[in-house]
Amino acid sequence: MSVEAPDSLPRLATAEVIAVGSELLTPFRTDTNSLFLTARLNEIGVVVRRKSIVGDSPTDLAGAIGEALARVDLLVVCGGLGPTDDDLTRETVAEVLGRSLHEDSDILQQLRERFEARGWTMPENNRRQACVPDGAVVLENPRGTAPGLWLEAGGRVVVLLPGPPRELEPMFADLARGRLAERVSDERLYRRVVRVAGRGESHVEELAQPVYAAWRHGDPAIDTTILASPGSVELHLSTRVATAPEATIVLDRATAQLAVVLGDHVVSTDGRTLSEVVGDSLRRHGHRVAVGESCTGGLVSAALVDTPGSSRYVVAGFVAYSNETKRSVLGVGAALLAEHGAVSEPVALAMAEGARRAADVEIGVGVTGIAGPGGGTAEKPVGTVCIAVVAPDGGRTVRTLQLPGDRAMIRQMATRTTVDLLRRVLARMETHEAVRGD
Amino acid sequence: MSVEAPDSLPRLATAEVIAVGSELLTPFRTDTNSLFLTARLNEIGVVVRRKSIVGDSPTDLAGAIGEALARVDLLVVCGGLGPTDDDLTRETVAEVLGRSLHEDSDILQQLRERFEARGWTMPENNRRQACVPDGAVVLENPRGTAPGLWLEAGGRVVVLLPGPPRELEPMFADLARGRLAERVSDERLYRRVVRVAGRGESHVEELAQPVYAAWRHGDPAIDTTILASPGSVELHLSTRVATAPEATIVLDRATAQLAVVLGDHVVSTDGRTLSEVVGDSLRRHGHRVAVGESCTGGLVSAALVDTPGSSRYVVAGFVAYSNETKRSVLGVGAALLAEHGAVSEPVALAMAEGARRAADVEIGVGVTGIAGPGGGTAEKPVGTVCIAVVAPDGGRTVRTLQLPGDRAMIRQMATRTTVDLLRRVLARMETHEAVRGD
Repeated sequence: MSVEAPDSLPRLATAEVIAVGSELLTPFRTDTNSLFLTARLNEIGVVVRRKSIVGDSPTDLAGAIGEALARVDLLVVCGGLGPTDDDLTRETVAEVLGRSLHEDSDILQQLRERFEARGWTMPENNRRQACVPDGAVVLENPRGTAPGLWLEAGGRVVVLLPGPPRELEPMFADLARGRLAERVSDERLYRRVVRVAGRGESHVEELAQPVYAAWRHGDPAIDTTILASPGSVELHLSTRVATAPEATIVLDRATAQLAVVLGDHVVSTDGRTLSEVVGDSLRRHGHRVAVGESCTGGLVSAALVDTPGSSRYVVAGFVAYSNETKRSVLGVGAALLAEHGAVSEPVALAMAEGARRAADVEIGVGVTGIAGPGGGTAEKPVGTVCIAVVAPDGGRTVRTLQLPGDRAMIRQMATRTTVDLLRRVLARMETHEAVRGD
Repeated sequence: MSVEAPDSLPRLATAEVIAVGSELLTPFRTDTNSLFLTARLNEIGVVVRRKSIVGDSPTDLAGAIGEALARVDLLVVCGGLGPTDDDLTRETVAEVLGRSLHEDSDILQQLRERFEARGWTMPENNRRQACVPDGAVVLENPRGTAPGLWLEAGGRVVVLLPGPPRELEPMFADLARGRLAERVSDERLYRRVVRVAGRGESHVEELAQPVYAAWRHGDPAIDTTILASPGSVELHLSTRVATAPEATIVLDRATAQLAVVLGDHVVSTDGRTLSEVVGDSLRRHGHRVAVGESCTGGLVSAALVDTPGSSRYVVAGFVAYSNETKRSVLGVGAALLAEHGAVSEPVALAMAEGARRAADVEIGVGVTGIAGPGGGTAEKPVGTVCIAVVAPDGGRTVRTLQLPGDRAMIRQMATRTTVDLLRRVLARMETHEAVRGD
């Protein structure tokens, strides 16, 4: 039997994704792994032609696999690799491809060790996860018990991946950089993400559209997609070129044009999240921060602590929901609360000052608001949130927001807007320092 | 030609959903209409067997329609009914079913009036939206220009719906109450959700599988789906019966059987979330709680504050990341920190005590751990988290967890496990009170 050299194998250009699991056919869950997979596939120039979701039925899955293999070069099947009776992907793929299954002793050994490391005995049903169709390449899964599998059949490739995103994503990212990259064409899709805060989707579009509309017909063309979530807008730029340096030139120029129209609403152009940008700025200056928050209930602290290493600059958080706690924990004056109400700019400032004082740090952040559904008044409706930052030099910045949506959305937008206010205060400090030559 | 009476038509029991649109095959968007459609279909006893997403390609769409009609009774196609050249659903369905298209003068008239009402002239390409396959029933769209269509062919039904959710949802809700309801059986699908905490998916399955395996072949049968997310497992029970009282009897009995094997791991059987269950228990007893947390960075407070009205029982939260803050804010002794380390059961208890004392409330909660990626040691690896609850009577409960996963997952699991420990302590208090007759 002759072994084909990789170069003689057909290039993979089209793909389908099949997600397996009866829970994905309920009103409560659907497939989202395909978004991640599509991004990685597009990057290496592979187009996704169809996505399907089937239940834990071997008949339905076998039909879907057979149909897909008649249409595309690469089939990615997600889910159904677990240890239970419902998990039938291994067996079904083997049957469709006419392969036998064998028990892989290396996988079995790793499974046993994984359980032993936790002081458990491996349940007997996990043994199924060591079953492998003949000719399959095993893809290691450091984050779970289900290994992935790579199969070749008639010039087509079938990849089986575990369903949980935290297992699937690193496994497929490895594959897209390695084994899969060797089987596709040389052109790649390069992306750049411009993160924006403090402006809604339609405002960002109004500012940016005249800029990016021209890119679509440029050479190389740049595609732009706007993605919005509460309190955050992202512009995703993508271009298809042969080399990374070429992509850098094209995307740098495009990003610079956007920066002109979006100004200080731009959080980052290098993929960093809002929390990371704030963390980097705090670390650079050796400033430490403390948070006093009410309606956000701990989410502002949690957002700042999101980033590894944040213990160096996030010193303390105080969740003070009641007036009594605002007084006892943050030292907000009873007279101030009585005069202005708990949701007011003076109280937000006093909470920021109180957190800064209680933790003995340079920067204080305060948030107080009405997340609803109850508690609103004509003067201060649900969605009214006051946010404040007190800077190292004692400078005070305070804003009142009127946020739309339900309780969860108000809390999320208030959190993001507060972290963004901190970003703006830090950026302003850096500009002043630069001007003063500090 | 004789007209068949509705009673002689086959009952619709199985469905597929096809979403049409190239944007749904990018990394940024996917179909979510199918979740709404599945909920409405399940309510009237129709099971969704498969969901597919295809681009704006007549070949791909024709293939998907043909395949689906060979499998199920009802096919719902969403999207591709707009006025542009990309919108090819009408033409493709007509071709697959072998029907001609004609221009519907009523639709054309309505389209013209719709534009005139806004002071505009109808663009010529909107005329395509008045094209209807022969034999189709037109479904009015008060919220947009694309009418829906209902077609019958060989005992199967094909429904075409516009893609935008705000147009699709009212149109399909009407259909499910009217024309579609007449074509399904009298049986309806009823659901029950059993929420479980403190046990992983495979453990829950090990305990519950012997119970629910028998249900599948019962009369009426009960289907069980397990949904897991970090720190939480849900069992979704569904049964197909004719009346709501009958469903209540069947699902109550099933839930009671699960409660026997799952014991105090059951959080709720009535749809309440973990935070709601804890909130209800605190409110019932008039107990107030304060949280001292480190690695979770505010997420435990935020989880408790998730529920509206929580200001009555969540009094204060303290995020104490550094040893210095654990000392100054929560009064954790320097000797204790030096002897046991910041991540230890004594320190978790001292944080709970400190939060309870600082806020002057009945219950204190403490969390300290290593969320990673750095900070782990051989003795205390990343994922080591100590959680503690101090009860109103001073009773102390403390646990050490070894959590898997990355920083985000460790924080999320630590948060849920802590809130669940609070639930268990509260439940135990209620049992004791009942025994003592308080």
